[in-house]
Amino acid sequence: MILARGRFITFEGTEGVGKSTQLDNAAKTLERLGIDYIVTREPGGTPMAESIRELLLAPREESVHETTELLLMFAARAQHLHNRILPALSAGKWVLCDRFTDATFAYQGGGRGVSRERIALLEALVQGEMRPDHVILLDAPVETGMARARKRGELDRFEREAQAFFQRIRETYLERATEMPGRYHVVNAALPLEQVSESVSALLTALAKLPVSD
Amino acid sequence: MILARGRFITFEGTEGVGKSTQLDNAAKTLERLGIDYIVTREPGGTPMAESIRELLLAPREESVHETTELLLMFAARAQHLHNRILPALSAGKWVLCDRFTDATFAYQGGGRGVSRERIALLEALVQGEMRPDHVILLDAPVETGMARARKRGELDRFEREAQAFFQRIRETYLERATEMPGRYHVVNAALPLEQVSESVSALLTALAKLPVSD
Repeated sequence: MILARGRFITFEGTEGVGKSTQLDNAAKTLERLGIDYIVTREPGGTPMAESIRELLLAPREESVHETTELLLMFAARAQHLHNRILPALSAGKWVLCDRFTDATFAYQGGGRGVSRERIALLEALVQGEMRPDHVILLDAPVETGMARARKRGELDRFEREAQAFFQRIRETYLERATEMPGRYHVVNAALPLEQVSESVSALLTALAKLPVSD
Repeated sequence: MILARGRFITFEGTEGVGKSTQLDNAAKTLERLGIDYIVTREPGGTPMAESIRELLLAPREESVHETTELLLMFAARAQHLHNRILPALSAGKWVLCDRFTDATFAYQGGGRGVSRERIALLEALVQGEMRPDHVILLDAPVETGMARARKRGELDRFEREAQAFFQRIRETYLERATEMPGRYHVVNAALPLEQVSESVSALLTALAKLPVSD
Protein backbone atom coordinates (compact mmCIF):
# COMPACT_ATOMS: atom_id res chain seq x y z
CA MET A 1 0.00 0.00 0.00
CA ILE A 2 0.89 3.69 -0.19
CA LEU A 3 3.07 5.27 2.54
CA ALA A 4 1.39 7.45 5.20
CA ARG A 5 -1.98 6.15 4.13
CA GLY A 6 -4.93 6.20 6.51
CA ARG A 7 -6.19 3.17 8.42
CA PHE A 8 -9.05 1.04 7.21
CA ILE A 9 -11.23 0.12 10.19
CA THR A 10 -14.40 -1.94 9.85
CA PHE A 11 -17.23 -2.44 12.34
CA GLU A 12 -18.83 -5.85 12.36
CA GLY A 13 -21.48 -7.71 14.33
CA THR A 14 -24.99 -9.16 14.12
CA GLU A 15 -28.19 -7.06 14.05
CA GLY A 16 -28.74 -4.63 16.90
CA VAL A 17 -25.28 -4.80 18.50
CA GLY A 18 -24.91 -1.03 18.16
CA LYS A 19 -22.73 -0.62 15.07
CA SER A 20 -24.24 2.74 14.09
CA THR A 21 -23.85 4.14 17.60
CA GLN A 22 -20.25 2.98 17.80
CA LEU A 23 -19.45 4.34 14.32
CA ASP A 24 -20.65 7.77 15.58
CA ASN A 25 -18.62 7.33 18.73
CA ALA A 26 -15.54 6.33 16.73
CA ALA A 27 -15.92 9.36 14.46
CA LYS A 28 -16.07 11.67 17.49
CA THR A 29 -12.99 9.99 18.94
CA LEU A 30 -11.02 10.54 15.72
CA GLU A 31 -12.15 14.19 15.71
CA ARG A 32 -10.81 14.63 19.24
CA LEU A 33 -7.54 13.03 18.11
CA GLY A 34 -7.35 15.42 15.12
CA ILE A 35 -7.43 12.57 12.60
CA ASP A 36 -9.05 13.14 9.21
CA TYR A 37 -11.58 10.40 8.39
CA ILE A 38 -14.64 9.31 6.42
CA VAL A 39 -17.54 7.14 7.60
CA THR A 40 -19.04 4.74 5.08
CA ARG A 41 -20.98 1.49 4.90
CA GLU A 42 -21.37 -1.80 3.06
CA PRO A 43 -23.11 -2.67 0.90
CA GLY A 44 -23.09 0.92 -0.38
CA GLY A 45 -20.75 3.87 0.00
CA THR A 46 -21.08 5.32 -3.54
CA PRO A 47 -24.26 6.19 -5.49
CA MET A 48 -23.90 3.09 -7.68
CA ALA A 49 -23.04 0.82 -4.75
CA GLU A 50 -26.07 2.21 -2.88
CA SER A 51 -28.25 1.29 -5.88
CA ILE A 52 -26.87 -2.25 -5.66
CA ARG A 53 -27.63 -2.21 -1.91
CA GLU A 54 -31.27 -1.32 -2.68
CA LEU A 55 -31.49 -4.26 -5.08
CA LEU A 56 -30.11 -6.57 -2.39
CA LEU A 57 -32.30 -5.44 0.50
CA ALA A 58 -35.64 -4.90 -1.27
CA PRO A 59 -38.22 -7.56 -0.41
CA ARG A 60 -39.23 -9.24 -3.68
CA GLU A 61 -41.34 -12.14 -4.93
CA GLU A 62 -38.55 -13.61 -7.05
CA SER A 63 -36.23 -15.82 -4.99
CA VAL A 64 -32.69 -14.47 -5.02
CA HIS A 65 -30.12 -17.17 -5.79
CA GLU A 66 -27.25 -17.28 -3.30
CA THR A 67 -24.69 -16.79 -6.09
CA THR A 68 -26.56 -13.69 -7.29
CA GLU A 69 -26.53 -12.26 -3.76
CA LEU A 70 -22.84 -13.01 -3.36
CA LEU A 71 -21.89 -11.41 -6.70
CA LEU A 72 -24.00 -8.31 -6.01
CA MET A 73 -22.30 -7.90 -2.62
CA PHE A 74 -18.87 -8.04 -4.25
CA ALA A 75 -19.95 -5.80 -7.16
CA ALA A 76 -20.95 -3.11 -4.65
CA ARG A 77 -17.69 -3.74 -2.78
CA ALA A 78 -15.52 -3.33 -5.90
CA GLN A 79 -17.20 -0.01 -6.62
CA HIS A 80 -16.92 1.15 -2.99
CA LEU A 81 -13.29 0.07 -2.69
CA HIS A 82 -12.06 1.70 -5.90
CA ASN A 83 -14.18 4.86 -5.89
CA ARG A 84 -14.28 5.69 -2.18
CA ILE A 85 -12.16 3.64 0.25
CA LEU A 86 -8.82 3.49 -1.62
CA PRO A 87 -8.89 7.20 -2.62
CA ALA A 88 -9.59 8.19 1.01
CA LEU A 89 -6.80 5.97 2.38
CA SER A 90 -4.37 7.31 -0.23
CA ALA A 91 -5.26 10.85 0.84
CA GLY A 92 -4.21 9.89 4.39
CA LYS A 93 -7.77 9.66 5.74
CA TRP A 94 -8.96 6.94 8.06
CA VAL A 95 -11.93 4.97 6.79
CA LEU A 96 -14.56 3.85 9.30
CA CYS A 97 -16.75 1.31 7.53
CA ASP A 98 -20.00 -0.29 8.67
CA ARG A 99 -19.33 -3.89 7.56
CA PHE A 100 -16.98 -5.28 4.92
CA THR A 101 -15.92 -8.71 3.62
CA ASP A 102 -15.92 -10.26 7.10
CA ALA A 103 -19.70 -9.71 6.99
CA THR A 104 -19.89 -11.73 3.76
CA PHE A 105 -18.02 -14.61 5.41
CA ALA A 106 -20.36 -14.33 8.41
CA TYR A 107 -23.73 -13.71 6.70
CA GLN A 108 -23.46 -15.52 3.35
CA GLY A 109 -20.88 -18.06 4.58
CA GLY A 110 -21.87 -18.85 8.16
CA GLY A 111 -25.50 -17.76 7.81
CA ARG A 112 -26.51 -19.07 4.38
CA GLY A 113 -23.94 -21.84 3.98
CA VAL A 114 -22.13 -20.43 0.93
CA SER A 115 -18.74 -22.15 0.78
CA ARG A 116 -15.85 -20.22 2.31
CA GLU A 117 -13.79 -21.02 -0.81
CA ARG A 118 -16.25 -19.25 -3.13
CA ILE A 119 -16.20 -16.17 -0.91
CA ALA A 120 -12.40 -16.21 -0.64
CA LEU A 121 -12.16 -16.49 -4.43
CA LEU A 122 -14.25 -13.35 -4.89
CA GLU A 123 -12.39 -11.59 -2.08
CA ALA A 124 -9.13 -12.20 -3.99
CA LEU A 125 -10.69 -11.16 -7.31
CA VAL A 126 -12.02 -7.86 -5.94
CA GLN A 127 -9.49 -6.96 -3.24
CA GLY A 128 -6.27 -8.67 -4.23
CA GLU A 129 -4.24 -8.59 -0.99
CA MET A 130 -6.22 -5.65 0.45
CA ARG A 131 -7.78 -6.33 3.87
CA PRO A 132 -9.04 -4.06 6.69
CA ASP A 133 -6.28 -2.97 9.07
CA HIS A 134 -8.59 -3.54 12.01
CA VAL A 135 -11.94 -5.22 12.46
CA ILE A 136 -13.91 -4.07 15.51
CA LEU A 137 -16.33 -6.88 16.29
CA LEU A 138 -19.24 -5.77 18.48
CA ASP A 139 -20.27 -9.03 20.05
CA ALA A 140 -23.47 -9.72 21.99
CA PRO A 141 -25.83 -12.67 22.43
CA VAL A 142 -28.20 -12.88 19.45
CA GLU A 143 -31.32 -12.37 21.63
CA THR A 144 -29.99 -9.01 22.90
CA GLY A 145 -29.34 -7.69 19.39
CA MET A 146 -32.58 -8.98 17.86
CA ALA A 147 -34.66 -7.27 20.56
CA ARG A 148 -32.90 -3.95 19.84
CA ALA A 149 -33.32 -4.32 16.05
CA ARG A 150 -37.04 -5.04 16.45
CA LYS A 151 -37.50 -1.84 18.49
CA ARG A 152 -36.10 0.20 15.60
CA GLY A 153 -39.11 -0.70 13.37
CA GLU A 154 -39.75 -2.99 10.42
CA LEU A 155 -37.17 -5.69 9.81
CA ASP A 156 -35.67 -6.01 6.31
CA ARG A 157 -35.18 -9.22 4.31
CA PHE A 158 -32.01 -10.20 6.17
CA GLU A 159 -33.40 -9.24 9.56
CA ARG A 160 -36.51 -11.37 9.12
CA GLU A 161 -34.38 -14.51 9.06
CA ALA A 162 -34.59 -16.88 11.99
CA GLN A 163 -32.59 -16.58 15.17
CA ALA A 164 -30.57 -19.72 14.37
CA PHE A 165 -29.28 -17.92 11.30
CA PHE A 166 -27.93 -15.07 13.44
CA GLN A 167 -26.46 -17.57 15.86
CA ARG A 168 -24.40 -19.08 13.01
CA ILE A 169 -23.33 -15.59 11.97
CA ARG A 170 -22.16 -14.70 15.47
CA GLU A 171 -20.22 -17.97 15.68
CA THR A 172 -18.53 -17.32 12.33
CA TYR A 173 -17.46 -13.85 13.45
CA LEU A 174 -16.03 -15.26 16.69
CA GLU A 175 -14.18 -18.01 14.79
CA ARG A 176 -12.63 -15.44 12.48
CA ALA A 177 -11.64 -13.33 15.50
CA THR A 178 -9.82 -16.37 16.88
CA GLU A 179 -8.11 -17.04 13.54
CA MET A 180 -6.96 -13.42 13.10
CA PRO A 181 -6.22 -12.09 16.59
CA GLY A 182 -3.95 -9.33 15.21
CA ARG A 183 -6.69 -7.90 13.02
CA TYR A 184 -9.81 -8.54 15.11
CA HIS A 185 -10.73 -6.61 18.27
CA VAL A 186 -13.72 -8.13 20.05
CA VAL A 187 -15.78 -5.66 22.11
CA ASN A 188 -18.46 -6.94 24.50
CA ALA A 189 -21.53 -5.12 23.17
CA ALA A 190 -23.85 -6.60 25.80
CA LEU A 191 -22.39 -4.24 28.43
CA PRO A 192 -24.09 -0.87 29.13
CA LEU A 193 -23.69 1.55 26.21
CA GLU A 194 -21.34 3.87 28.11
CA GLN A 195 -18.88 1.05 28.75
CA VAL A 196 -19.01 -0.13 25.13
CA SER A 197 -18.34 3.42 23.93
CA GLU A 198 -15.42 3.77 26.32
CA SER A 199 -13.90 0.51 25.05
CA VAL A 200 -14.22 1.57 21.41
CA SER A 201 -12.74 5.04 22.11
CA ALA A 202 -9.85 3.56 24.04
CA LEU A 203 -9.21 1.06 21.25
CA LEU A 204 -9.12 3.76 18.54
CA THR A 205 -6.84 5.93 20.66
CA ALA A 206 -4.46 2.98 21.03
CA LEU A 207 -4.61 2.22 17.27
CA ALA A 208 -3.77 5.86 16.47
CA LYS A 209 -0.48 5.40 18.35
CA LEU A 210 0.49 2.29 16.34
CA PRO A 211 2.82 2.81 13.40
CA VAL A 212 1.28 2.00 9.97
CA SER A 213 2.36 -1.57 9.40
CA ASP A 214 2.35 -1.80 5.61
CA MET B 1 -27.50 -32.51 -17.60
CA ILE B 2 -31.02 -33.89 -17.46
CA LEU B 3 -32.23 -36.34 -20.14
CA ALA B 4 -34.56 -35.02 -22.86
CA ARG B 5 -33.78 -31.48 -21.87
CA GLY B 6 -34.16 -28.63 -24.37
CA ARG B 7 -31.29 -26.99 -26.24
CA PHE B 8 -29.64 -23.81 -25.04
CA ILE B 9 -28.93 -21.61 -28.06
CA THR B 10 -27.37 -18.16 -27.76
CA PHE B 11 -27.20 -15.36 -30.32
CA GLU B 12 -24.05 -13.28 -30.30
CA GLY B 13 -22.53 -10.43 -32.30
CA THR B 14 -21.61 -6.74 -32.16
CA GLU B 15 -24.16 -3.88 -32.26
CA GLY B 16 -26.57 -3.78 -35.16
CA VAL B 17 -25.83 -7.22 -36.66
CA GLY B 18 -29.52 -8.11 -36.40
CA LYS B 19 -29.71 -10.27 -33.27
CA SER B 20 -33.29 -9.21 -32.42
CA THR B 21 -34.49 -9.89 -35.97
CA GLN B 22 -32.82 -13.30 -36.02
CA LEU B 23 -34.18 -14.20 -32.57
CA ASP B 24 -37.69 -13.53 -33.93
CA ASN B 25 -36.87 -15.56 -37.02
CA ALA B 26 -35.48 -18.42 -34.90
CA ALA B 27 -38.62 -18.40 -32.73
CA LYS B 28 -40.84 -18.67 -35.83
CA THR B 29 -38.68 -21.51 -37.13
CA LEU B 30 -39.05 -23.45 -33.88
CA GLU B 31 -42.81 -22.86 -34.00
CA ARG B 32 -42.93 -24.35 -37.48
CA LEU B 33 -40.93 -27.32 -36.22
CA GLY B 34 -43.36 -27.78 -33.30
CA ILE B 35 -40.62 -27.23 -30.70
CA ASP B 36 -41.53 -25.62 -27.37
CA TYR B 37 -39.20 -22.69 -26.56
CA ILE B 38 -38.64 -19.46 -24.64
CA VAL B 39 -36.88 -16.30 -25.85
CA THR B 40 -34.81 -14.42 -23.32
CA ARG B 41 -31.87 -12.03 -23.11
CA GLU B 42 -28.73 -11.11 -21.19
CA PRO B 43 -28.18 -9.21 -19.07
CA GLY B 44 -31.76 -9.71 -17.90
CA GLY B 45 -34.34 -12.44 -18.29
CA THR B 46 -35.93 -12.26 -14.81
CA PRO B 47 -37.32 -9.18 -12.97
CA MET B 48 -34.27 -9.02 -10.69
CA ALA B 49 -31.80 -9.62 -13.52
CA GLU B 50 -33.57 -6.89 -15.54
CA SER B 51 -33.06 -4.51 -12.58
CA ILE B 52 -29.35 -5.36 -12.65
CA ARG B 53 -29.38 -4.71 -16.42
CA GLU B 54 -30.83 -1.22 -15.79
CA LEU B 55 -28.02 -0.51 -13.31
CA LEU B 56 -25.45 -1.61 -15.89
CA LEU B 57 -26.79 0.30 -18.88
CA ALA B 58 -27.89 3.57 -17.25
CA PRO B 59 -25.59 6.48 -18.13
CA ARG B 60 -24.17 7.84 -14.84
CA GLU B 61 -21.66 10.39 -13.58
CA GLU B 62 -19.85 7.89 -11.34
CA SER B 63 -17.29 5.86 -13.26
CA VAL B 64 -18.11 2.15 -13.14
CA HIS B 65 -15.09 0.04 -12.21
CA GLU B 66 -14.49 -2.86 -14.61
CA THR B 67 -14.69 -5.38 -11.76
CA THR B 68 -18.07 -3.95 -10.72
CA GLU B 69 -19.36 -4.29 -14.25
CA LEU B 70 -18.06 -7.85 -14.52
CA LEU B 71 -19.62 -8.93 -11.21
CA LEU B 72 -22.97 -7.32 -12.05
CA MET B 73 -23.01 -9.16 -15.38
CA PHE B 74 -22.43 -12.47 -13.64
CA ALA B 75 -24.90 -11.66 -10.84
CA ALA B 76 -27.62 -11.13 -13.46
CA ARG B 77 -26.46 -14.31 -15.20
CA ALA B 78 -26.66 -16.44 -12.02
CA GLN B 79 -30.21 -15.24 -11.45
CA HIS B 80 -31.20 -15.79 -15.09
CA LEU B 81 -29.60 -19.22 -15.25
CA HIS B 82 -31.14 -20.59 -12.05
CA ASN B 83 -34.57 -18.95 -12.22
CA ARG B 84 -35.29 -19.08 -15.95
CA ILE B 85 -32.87 -20.95 -18.25
CA LEU B 86 -32.31 -24.17 -16.29
CA PRO B 87 -36.01 -24.61 -15.38
CA ALA B 88 -36.99 -24.16 -19.07
CA LEU B 89 -34.34 -26.65 -20.28
CA SER B 90 -35.40 -29.16 -17.63
CA ALA B 91 -38.98 -28.82 -18.84
CA GLY B 92 -37.76 -29.80 -22.32
CA LYS B 93 -38.02 -26.31 -23.79
CA TRP B 94 -35.43 -24.78 -26.07
CA VAL B 95 -33.94 -21.53 -24.82
CA LEU B 96 -33.14 -18.82 -27.39
CA CYS B 97 -31.00 -16.26 -25.59
CA ASP B 98 -29.86 -12.82 -26.79
CA ARG B 99 -26.22 -12.94 -25.58
CA PHE B 100 -24.59 -15.00 -22.82
CA THR B 101 -21.09 -15.51 -21.40
CA ASP B 102 -19.45 -15.37 -24.83
CA ALA B 103 -20.55 -11.71 -24.86
CA THR B 104 -18.68 -11.15 -21.59
CA PHE B 105 -15.50 -12.62 -23.08
CA ALA B 106 -16.02 -10.43 -26.17
CA TYR B 107 -17.17 -7.12 -24.57
CA GLN B 108 -15.45 -7.04 -21.18
CA GLY B 109 -12.52 -9.24 -22.24
CA GLY B 110 -11.76 -8.25 -25.84
CA GLY B 111 -13.38 -4.81 -25.62
CA ARG B 112 -12.33 -3.54 -22.20
CA GLY B 113 -9.24 -5.65 -21.64
CA VAL B 114 -10.48 -7.59 -18.58
CA SER B 115 -8.30 -10.69 -18.28
CA ARG B 116 -9.75 -13.86 -19.77
CA GLU B 117 -8.75 -15.70 -16.57
CA ARG B 118 -10.94 -13.46 -14.38
CA ILE B 119 -13.91 -14.02 -16.69
CA ALA B 120 -13.28 -17.78 -16.83
CA LEU B 121 -13.11 -17.88 -13.04
CA LEU B 122 -16.55 -16.25 -12.72
CA GLU B 123 -17.92 -18.43 -15.51
CA ALA B 124 -16.90 -21.51 -13.49
CA LEU B 125 -18.27 -20.02 -10.24
CA VAL B 126 -21.68 -19.22 -11.76
CA GLN B 127 -22.12 -21.94 -14.39
CA GLY B 128 -19.97 -24.86 -13.27
CA GLU B 129 -19.67 -26.94 -16.45
CA MET B 130 -22.81 -25.46 -18.01
CA ARG B 131 -22.27 -23.93 -21.49
CA PRO B 132 -24.61 -23.08 -24.39
CA ASP B 133 -25.21 -26.04 -26.70
CA HIS B 134 -24.89 -23.76 -29.71
CA VAL B 135 -23.69 -20.19 -30.21
CA ILE B 136 -25.02 -18.49 -33.34
CA LEU B 137 -22.55 -15.71 -34.13
CA LEU B 138 -24.01 -13.06 -36.42
CA ASP B 139 -20.88 -11.59 -37.94
CA ALA B 140 -20.61 -8.38 -39.97
CA PRO B 141 -18.01 -5.63 -40.39
CA VAL B 142 -18.24 -3.17 -37.46
CA GLU B 143 -19.14 -0.21 -39.75
CA THR B 144 -22.23 -2.05 -41.07
CA GLY B 145 -23.54 -2.80 -37.58
CA MET B 146 -22.79 0.64 -36.12
CA ALA B 147 -24.71 2.38 -38.91
CA ARG B 148 -27.76 0.17 -38.24
CA ALA B 149 -27.57 0.74 -34.45
CA ARG B 150 -27.39 4.51 -34.95
CA LYS B 151 -30.55 4.43 -37.08
CA ARG B 152 -32.45 2.84 -34.19
CA GLY B 153 -32.06 6.02 -32.07
CA GLU B 154 -30.00 7.04 -29.06
CA LEU B 155 -26.94 4.92 -28.34
CA ASP B 156 -26.51 3.57 -24.78
CA ARG B 157 -23.33 3.61 -22.69
CA PHE B 158 -21.83 0.58 -24.44
CA GLU B 159 -22.87 1.72 -27.90
CA ARG B 160 -21.23 5.13 -27.49
CA GLU B 161 -17.82 3.48 -27.26
CA ALA B 162 -15.43 3.93 -30.14
CA GLN B 163 -15.33 1.81 -33.26
CA ALA B 164 -11.96 0.31 -32.30
CA PHE B 165 -13.64 -1.14 -29.23
CA PHE B 166 -16.20 -2.96 -31.41
CA GLN B 167 -13.45 -4.12 -33.72
CA ARG B 168 -11.74 -5.86 -30.76
CA ILE B 169 -15.08 -7.41 -29.78
CA ARG B 170 -15.67 -8.77 -33.27
CA GLU B 171 -12.17 -10.24 -33.34
CA THR B 172 -12.67 -11.92 -29.94
CA TYR B 173 -15.91 -13.51 -31.12
CA LEU B 174 -14.21 -14.79 -34.28
CA GLU B 175 -11.28 -16.17 -32.26
CA ARG B 176 -13.68 -18.03 -29.97
CA ALA B 177 -15.52 -19.40 -33.01
CA THR B 178 -12.21 -20.79 -34.26
CA GLU B 179 -11.41 -22.30 -30.84
CA MET B 180 -14.83 -23.93 -30.46
CA PRO B 181 -15.93 -24.96 -33.96
CA GLY B 182 -18.38 -27.56 -32.60
CA ARG B 183 -20.26 -25.01 -30.52
CA TYR B 184 -20.02 -21.89 -32.70
CA HIS B 185 -21.95 -21.34 -35.92
CA VAL B 186 -20.81 -18.20 -37.77
CA VAL B 187 -23.49 -16.58 -39.95
CA ASN B 188 -22.52 -13.80 -42.39
CA ALA B 189 -24.83 -11.00 -41.20
CA ALA B 190 -23.61 -8.54 -43.85
CA LEU B 191 -25.65 -10.38 -46.50
CA PRO B 192 -29.21 -9.22 -47.33
CA LEU B 193 -31.65 -9.90 -44.49
CA GLU B 194 -33.54 -12.60 -46.39
CA GLN B 195 -30.37 -14.65 -46.87
CA VAL B 196 -29.34 -14.26 -43.22
CA SER B 197 -32.78 -15.40 -42.08
CA GLU B 198 -32.65 -18.41 -44.41
CA SER B 199 -29.23 -19.41 -43.02
CA VAL B 200 -30.46 -19.16 -39.41
CA SER B 201 -33.65 -21.13 -40.15
CA ALA B 202 -31.70 -23.84 -41.96
CA LEU B 203 -29.23 -24.04 -39.09
CA LEU B 204 -31.97 -24.45 -36.46
CA THR B 205 -33.73 -27.06 -38.56
CA ALA B 206 -30.46 -29.01 -38.78
CA LEU B 207 -29.86 -28.65 -35.01
CA ALA B 208 -33.35 -30.00 -34.29
CA LYS B 209 -32.37 -33.23 -36.06
CA LEU B 210 -29.22 -33.70 -33.95
CA PRO B 211 -29.50 -36.00 -30.95
CA VAL B 212 -29.05 -34.29 -27.57
CA SER B 213 -25.36 -34.81 -26.87
CA ASP B 214 -25.26 -34.65 -23.08
